[in-house]
Amino acid sequence: MKIESLIKKVSAKSARSKAKNSSIVISSRLRLARNLNKYSFPNCASDSQRSNVLSDVEEALSALPYMKNGNFFTMDSLSDFEKKILVERHWISKELAEQKNGSAVYISSDQICSVMINEEDHLRIQFIKNNFNLNSLWKTLSKFDDVLEASLPYAFTKELGYLTSCPSNLGTGLRASVMMHLPGLLITGNIKKIIRASNQLGLAVRGLFGEGSDAYGHIYQISNQQTLGESEEEILNRLAAVLKNIVEHELNARSKYLENNKAKLSDLIARAHAILSSAHVISSDEAMNYLSYIRLAIDLGFISEEFRSLIDFLFIQIQPGHIEFPNAILSIESRDIKRAEILRNNFSKLPPLNFDK
Amino acid sequence: MKIESLIKKVSAKSARSKAKNSSIVISSRLRLARNLNKYSFPNCASDSQRSNVLSDVEEALSALPYMKNGNFFTMDSLSDFEKKILVERHWISKELAEQKNGSAVYISSDQICSVMINEEDHLRIQFIKNNFNLNSLWKTLSKFDDVLEASLPYAFTKELGYLTSCPSNLGTGLRASVMMHLPGLLITGNIKKIIRASNQLGLAVRGLFGEGSDAYGHIYQISNQQTLGESEEEILNRLAAVLKNIVEHELNARSKYLENNKAKLSDLIARAHAILSSAHVISSDEAMNYLSYIRLAIDLGFISEEFRSLIDFLFIQIQPGHIEFPNAILSIESRDIKRAEILRNNFSKLPPLNFDK
Repeated sequence: MKIESLIKKVSAKSARSKAKNSSIVISSRLRLARNLNKYSFPNCASDSQRSNVLSDVEEALSALPYMKNGNFFTMDSLSDFEKKILVERHWISKELAEQKNGSAVYISSDQICSVMINEEDHLRIQFIKNNFNLNSLWKTLSKFDDVLEASLPYAFTKELGYLTSCPSNLGTGLRASVMMHLPGLLITGNIKKIIRASNQLGLAVRGLFGEGSDAYGHIYQISNQQTLGESEEEILNRLAAVLKNIVEHELNARSKYLENNKAKLSDLIARAHAILSSAHVISSDEAMNYLSYIRLAIDLGFISEEFRSLIDFLFIQIQPGHIEFPNAILSIESRDIKRAEILRNNFSKLPPLNFDK
Repeated sequence: MKIESLIKKVSAKSARSKAKNSSIVISSRLRLARNLNKYSFPNCASDSQRSNVLSDVEEALSALPYMKNGNFFTMDSLSDFEKKILVERHWISKELAEQKNGSAVYISSDQICSVMINEEDHLRIQFIKNNFNLNSLWKTLSKFDDVLEASLPYAFTKELGYLTSCPSNLGTGLRASVMMHLPGLLITGNIKKIIRASNQLGLAVRGLFGEGSDAYGHIYQISNQQTLGESEEEILNRLAAVLKNIVEHELNARSKYLENNKAKLSDLIARAHAILSSAHVISSDEAMNYLSYIRLAIDLGFISEEFRSLIDFLFIQIQPGHIEFPNAILSIESRDIKRAEILRNNFSKLPPLNFDK
């Protein structure tokens, strides 16, 4: 099974090396929406048009050296359970997972780039990295897009820019989003204020799995809402400025809470640690919220930095699809039992909390 | 401070020896309401009448060999914080704690008998024992009451029996109540049915501290509501029959849940154990509910029987007044921090849970 090797690649070890510089910012993601000018948008394209889109894009991507050892999956060929895993890794969207003929995904061998074909648009090109450097990520993505554009004639007008299936992506077609871990703002009750302010500045704040999802694990996706009337650089600079501000607020909330409510903060962290070490049944939502406090404990020095990679790895490993892997669909109860087992085993490796630091 | 020595007497050791036979039934309590025929009921008595009641009763009690080394406290002489402790030990009622002149309590040196003076009635005589033998307890109480009656002329008529301040106690003046630990009925959602059935059989079901209190720690007080038209023996036999039935239902609920939901039950117990071992801030309500699961774990053999006394001891030691003892009134937050500390220290003595039993 091809998907098996892809999943095994992201081991705890590789998560570790990637996670070194990240604390509040977990990852940055840039995504371009593109369409081919020869065909109707996917939602109104005929089956043969969708197939043509797929073969055109496949041909163009195969020609790129970067994609040479990449992984290609059509949605038709995947089981529900495999699609779940790809969604949990953020390689495909839930929307793509629901599509059938002509819908597919290319994932680069370094797992940084994924190209969704026949999702809402013909092409959704995304680059994800575990740090906060939107500009360098944009340079890579932009170059990739330029090369692709040379062989795939995009739908584009001088007045509107890149044409997209939904007007909310018109223009640059760029959605830049940063995944942030904000437990401090949550504990101090300031998160709502930050969300409101971000919205007023034209940014959307969403949960871990995008639109409509909850902020389990106190992880928020913050992204630009506007794609029209601003250059890509302007979009990225504005986003970066707001994000830096949010990081400061988060750090501030943490240090104030630590100063004024050390016992309560120790309590939150100690209980999270205790439950993850001991539970026999646990849902992914609950586990993520507790893992969030452990991640915070690492940031605050209550747990050694060397365990960060393990915790970040567990955030992914406890997702429903990953729990089921490599067996099969499990009942929710069996999944919750297996998840608790995995957490107990991993937490037995952690040293006791040290609050005197 | 006199109260200090009284409190220290109930050590973990004495709690242990008393608790041996108790599991679902924690304790049995019999209480008689009595009034002296010479004086008005306390709520409409003058100050001098209340004083006279007190001195008459004091004289009669002092003459009893059983009360010779007992402890005597007037409510006037106790601080709020000391009264809180007496309430938490169930030696006085919250109502007595709120009374002033002429109100007092006698507590026998073996701590089984307490006599409240000028509560709702002139005399409230109660006997508490950590087991389920209402008949033998009744024999002791009845004899004690007969001796007292010989020197204190009670208000009594042939038609109505013993006269009491509130008609709900008229007749025998007997309230028999049994404290039961019913986590199984709670977990399985059957507790409401049992309460309804008990009510229909003329029994009241209340929380740990009587009327209007919640069933923290899954502990319920079940008592007769009627005092008129039945002999004491009939009251006790009817109560005992219902209680035996409730015990069976509780045992049934436990074994069925263990059979069908072992993972969930292990989870409840493991989490309770983890939180009590790790929390840095904890309220008494929360702590009691978790201690309840530890008590259940002992009943089920997941924790060795030898720790039962410690757990039963902690049920008392984590009450607000006991947390404050021997210092002074603490803020709720400081109390919650100190309680968590006590629990962490004590739980470090417990062995790991053994669910394979």
